[in-house]
Amino acid sequence: MPNTFGHLFRITTWGESHGGGVGVVVDGCPPRLPLTEADIQPELDRRRPGQSRIVSPRKESDTVEILSGTFEGLTLGTPICLLVRNEDARPEAYLEMARKFRPSHADYTYHAKYGIRNWQGGGRSSARETIGRVAAGAIAKKILREQFGVQVLAWVKQIKNIVADVDPTKVQPRQVESNIVRCPDSDAAEKMVRLIERVRKVGDTVGGIVEAVARGVPPGWGEPVFDKLEADLAKAMLSLPASRGFEIGSGFGSVLLTGLQHNDPFRMKGGRVRTVTNRSGGIQGGISNGEMIFFRVPFKPVATVMQEQDTVDIEYRNTTLKGRGRHDPCVLPRAVPMVEAMTALVLVDHALRQRAQCGA
Amino acid sequence: MPNTFGHLFRITTWGESHGGGVGVVVDGCPPRLPLTEADIQPELDRRRPGQSRIVSPRKESDTVEILSGTFEGLTLGTPICLLVRNEDARPEAYLEMARKFRPSHADYTYHAKYGIRNWQGGGRSSARETIGRVAAGAIAKKILREQFGVQVLAWVKQIKNIVADVDPTKVQPRQVESNIVRCPDSDAAEKMVRLIERVRKVGDTVGGIVEAVARGVPPGWGEPVFDKLEADLAKAMLSLPASRGFEIGSGFGSVLLTGLQHNDPFRMKGGRVRTVTNRSGGIQGGISNGEMIFFRVPFKPVATVMQEQDTVDIEYRNTTLKGRGRHDPCVLPRAVPMVEAMTALVLVDHALRQRAQCGA
Amino acid sequence: MPNTFGHLFRITTWGESHGGGVGVVVDGCPPRLPLTEADIQPELDRRRPGQSRIVSPRKESDTVEILSGTFEGLTLGTPICLLVRNEDARPEAYLEMARKFRPSHADYTYHAKYGIRNWQGGGRSSARETIGRVAAGAIAKKILREQFGVQVLAWVKQIKNIVADVDPTKVQPRQVESNIVRCPDSDAAEKMVRLIERVRKVGDTVGGIVEAVARGVPPGWGEPVFDKLEADLAKAMLSLPASRGFEIGSGFGSVLLTGLQHNDPFRMKGGRVRTVTNRSGGIQGGISNGEMIFFRVPFKPVATVMQEQDTVDIEYRNTTLKGRGRHDPCVLPRAVPMVEAMTALVLVDHALRQRAQCGA
Amino acid sequence: MPNTFGHLFRITTWGESHGGGVGVVVDGCPPRLPLTEADIQPELDRRRPGQSRIVSPRKESDTVEILSGTFEGLTLGTPICLLVRNEDARPEAYLEMARKFRPSHADYTYHAKYGIRNWQGGGRSSARETIGRVAAGAIAKKILREQFGVQVLAWVKQIKNIVADVDPTKVQPRQVESNIVRCPDSDAAEKMVRLIERVRKVGDTVGGIVEAVARGVPPGWGEPVFDKLEADLAKAMLSLPASRGFEIGSGFGSVLLTGLQHNDPFRMKGGRVRTVTNRSGGIQGGISNGEMIFFRVPFKPVATVMQEQDTVDIEYRNTTLKGRGRHDPCVLPRAVPMVEAMTALVLVDHALRQRAQCGA
Repeated sequence: MPNTFGHLFRITTWGESHGGGVGVVVDGCPPRLPLTEADIQPELDRRRPGQSRIVSPRKESDTVEILSGTFEGLTLGTPICLLVRNEDARPEAYLEMARKFRPSHADYTYHAKYGIRNWQGGGRSSARETIGRVAAGAIAKKILREQFGVQVLAWVKQIKNIVADVDPTKVQPRQVESNIVRCPDSDAAEKMVRLIERVRKVGDTVGGIVEAVARGVPPGWGEPVFDKLEADLAKAMLSLPASRGFEIGSGFGSVLLTGLQHNDPFRMKGGRVRTVTNRSGGIQGGISNGEMIFFRVPFKPVATVMQEQDTVDIEYRNTTLKGRGRHDPCVLPRAVPMVEAMTALVLVDHALRQRAQCGA
Repeated sequence: MPNTFGHLFRITTWGESHGGGVGVVVDGCPPRLPLTEADIQPELDRRRPGQSRIVSPRKESDTVEILSGTFEGLTLGTPICLLVRNEDARPEAYLEMARKFRPSHADYTYHAKYGIRNWQGGGRSSARETIGRVAAGAIAKKILREQFGVQVLAWVKQIKNIVADVDPTKVQPRQVESNIVRCPDSDAAEKMVRLIERVRKVGDTVGGIVEAVARGVPPGWGEPVFDKLEADLAKAMLSLPASRGFEIGSGFGSVLLTGLQHNDPFRMKGGRVRTVTNRSGGIQGGISNGEMIFFRVPFKPVATVMQEQDTVDIEYRNTTLKGRGRHDPCVLPRAVPMVEAMTALVLVDHALRQRAQCGA
Repeated sequence: MPNTFGHLFRITTWGESHGGGVGVVVDGCPPRLPLTEADIQPELDRRRPGQSRIVSPRKESDTVEILSGTFEGLTLGTPICLLVRNEDARPEAYLEMARKFRPSHADYTYHAKYGIRNWQGGGRSSARETIGRVAAGAIAKKILREQFGVQVLAWVKQIKNIVADVDPTKVQPRQVESNIVRCPDSDAAEKMVRLIERVRKVGDTVGGIVEAVARGVPPGWGEPVFDKLEADLAKAMLSLPASRGFEIGSGFGSVLLTGLQHNDPFRMKGGRVRTVTNRSGGIQGGISNGEMIFFRVPFKPVATVMQEQDTVDIEYRNTTLKGRGRHDPCVLPRAVPMVEAMTALVLVDHALRQRAQCGA
Repeated sequence: MPNTFGHLFRITTWGESHGGGVGVVVDGCPPRLPLTEADIQPELDRRRPGQSRIVSPRKESDTVEILSGTFEGLTLGTPICLLVRNEDARPEAYLEMARKFRPSHADYTYHAKYGIRNWQGGGRSSARETIGRVAAGAIAKKILREQFGVQVLAWVKQIKNIVADVDPTKVQPRQVESNIVRCPDSDAAEKMVRLIERVRKVGDTVGGIVEAVARGVPPGWGEPVFDKLEADLAKAMLSLPASRGFEIGSGFGSVLLTGLQHNDPFRMKGGRVRTVTNRSGGIQGGISNGEMIFFRVPFKPVATVMQEQDTVDIEYRNTTLKGRGRHDPCVLPRAVPMVEAMTALVLVDHALRQRAQCGA
């Protein structure tokens, strides 16, 4: 189901970068949840271009409208449709792209797949599509927080070779939001901002790593085989534009330890089964074990650069293309709310699954 | 759908480590494909325990029976049910596990989720579940090979800190199969075997990295948003037991390059649109671009070790547990066919989707 | 998936009778199909209240806007979101319904299920929800017509005890549209109109039977077991508001014949395998056989009547309720485009499935 | 999903009439339900051929084996695979069918769809496929009975023109099982048996109507739009071999009443909201209202007759075919457990959905 995500708490996004708008239908939301636009807009503002000098300067207010699914400020249990109109339509800025495939973008593959593409701003492959996800994720985060006591939080861990020093067990939202790069290590954040400004000036871009946690997930969420919690998280993360990987808990580093070194011993603590270490990242056998879930997602440097590159045109001739006008030097600060949204969507889906099959 | 994978070429696995058997139902297979047990058994033999001195010594012939879906050696288009009986049932070997949760296994989380678990050999969380996947994957590989000209291949790239030197663009199956560790670099393979034997002797285990490619995938497979080809691959890989991550193309390393350094320029070559470099790993915007698809998957060291570890029992008291009897020092050689199977399953599913929506 | 229908050509409807609007997301539409609002609006006009003196007088223009999924008049292969704003909001007309459950409506069951309901005009249970279906069905009908040569047609066969004389093999759209009741038998149509006007005057309502055909469906559409073509049609029809049943081909009448009388002999005709009779209704073993598909759907009389009825209020006390203001004496004329839409959605979905699995 | 039914309690059937066997995978069953073969076998015995002189004389013991999903007599929450081996293989009895399409069977349509078919006994289109459904339905019935207090019951209401007099509100299983035709009206049952024996002697067949109820369903099961409870029931029933229709509550007869006559007034009774009449058949707006659910399903006369009929062969030439050997004069007695099974599967699925979304 190409544009749908989730099994019980299910979202379907739609919309291109240019055209009537973008949005999402959320199906399966529990009824009687207090919900207005004010619950959603702040997350969209965190995702919005133009929010600071180090992200895309595209001008969009990204104002959300709830078209259905609520009544007198409460959810009805029926599908919630959220709409954000497109505003900053400048087709002329994209005319060259109508005829040339931008390197490392989706222009060529869409063309190959569909025989047609909306070349204005990337169309469906634009990061604008994530508006629907972030809007739906705001609802998921609210359900997790209010009905399950679960907190989802992400931050920028690394930009290019600048690595932040962050304690995943303690970091809080206000630290993440304390600077425009969304890195809770203020020293690293400062360096990151300077680096981003530097590459922006030369028309280049940088990538980095987002780290995320979910705290308060009870034991028992997740499924044993294909829908392992980490498998659904991995899919969620790799479905984000520009993401290139995923690792849970000890991740790639796990291969350098032996089994004896790597295992998480169990101990009783506060009347609960706990693990002494948490190399499992809060998930064992695909199912949450009550420890903090944490993982990392690398995002490649944004493909649109303001320098000339080799490419091919739609008549399959070699040519060159140089980005012009506005460019987004680093997607990481805006990737943070996207990662949180997708994490929350996975978790609330599994919370409802657990309730369906196991009654709790 | 916890035990089902795929949308159009869809598999449902079932079975516990101990009990009647394990198997898979394959739904959506094209009709009139020549198929007998002889197409499937060789892949199961690559996955089988006891195949060499460096893997689990459990004794199982893993003989597959086709229960349905074929007639006179051809697929019918109806569901194909494949059954492998369990043989090596030694419940007494697991008696201690009936009362204690093995560290970094799924014992505790299954208990927390379901309030019951088959403690014999891990039950559903056993790697035996992957028999169904590998059997179904054999069919998927055959379809890809014969109907789409696509080759799927995986190998061991790294065991602990021993890294193999492999050219992903050229390596062939016979090189992978030339040694028991399934590493095409024979020097590295030799070191890996020695390392695995060493840790086995002390009752410990090691992990490593599997690398995989798909060659010959035409441009256009994959979906733009949630079902991006790399997202489905990531989910597939993270659904394998002991896997801890996934990276496509430049992966985590992508964050160290700038956009200008990272982009893959397009050039015409042999009448086709090609990329000069392949940092995208053959996928752009979630859709294949005709280049080789490649990715890496880390597998943690096997959790069962032959030394005493702290743990908790089912009455929530601190205790210790020491593995006894047989143990699997390294899952990597057997993970190779699992990775190939899941890769093939993802690809054939997207091949059929592309045919459905776009007619080719 | 409560608000989603279809597997490959998949629609998700959303929206309540009152609130921002109603609409649909169509996912899986083939790319490069010419599509503008002008392809959709005529079907919505056939569904619209206020179109004649014998249907609901609610005032809504039901003007559709394509929010996504097309570019320069062609479909992109990405999700098509269609929006129709609500206009005729008169919450004061529904105030009594806020506190009382209308008999044979969904008021009580929604209340029981969700603990909340939008009592304005029935909310999600309003026939307004079918706007999304009819809009999506217009696209499905176009695909069937232009890409598969399939015609879908429905008409009013019966209103209360007035039964029309219609030859399902020959009737054409202009005959259906030749009168306001959408019955191709003009004598019967006249009687039906008079009957509807009579019950409307006394504040009562009538039901009837819609008959439908699909012509030109090639042999091979449909699935052998759960997704039999008639099973999906039955679900589609019973999902329409006020429908109470479904019968395919000889239907309930089949039980009065013996096997020998009922069977459809095969004969070659025009180089094709044909059946001499068509009691199978064009489907055998769940799969189309190349003959005309036909079926019938009864719709109960509309539940809103302008006379006092016993009921219960939201504090669970006995009371009475009398409908007031506007009422819809007969849903049948407007059910015709709904039946056509759902039929087309089922068929195009199976056309794409057939292409996916069997390559044609 | 051609061979899968259900969303949360999900079954996948597999198997042909001839070949290794038939079976089902049940995914989503709650854990810790007591379950052994003894819970399932009695329902299979009710479905079995050869159970009486008025049904198919095919000799099969239909002995079920639980291959997975239980441990020490309790369900694990993991997939339950059930296997029934085929026994009565007499390919020579079907040799003529290898080359000729049986009228009103699925031979031609399977051939047209897949280009191949298992011509032995109908292959996948054989009623043997329903073994998996009835086995899974036995589990669903047990869950409904023990965890939700819901009773599902079906019976033969009509054979050809013999109509039984049955009070759906009172009839009990022992009355249904009191005769071989499964009709609780013993006078009618006697006539039915005589009629079936008469047509069997002349090599002909008869059909009839099964009536079914679900008692004790609480208000709130079902979904508002596509997955209305009656829509899922309709699909379930039309997916059964030889069924030709479905009607809920007042059904086709509803069209003869006016709205005022047809509506079910609400009244408080025993502290609960009740309807005075039950023309709605226990479902309003797609959601159960707490009244008894009841519906009817017509089954056409079995297509295999022992007389010569016109048909076409696989080389598309006119020919004739005469059934030989054993034939099933009436499927109705065996359809009763099939209808019960599918009803239970629909209900338990919606019970779990309700728990997931609404928490109860």
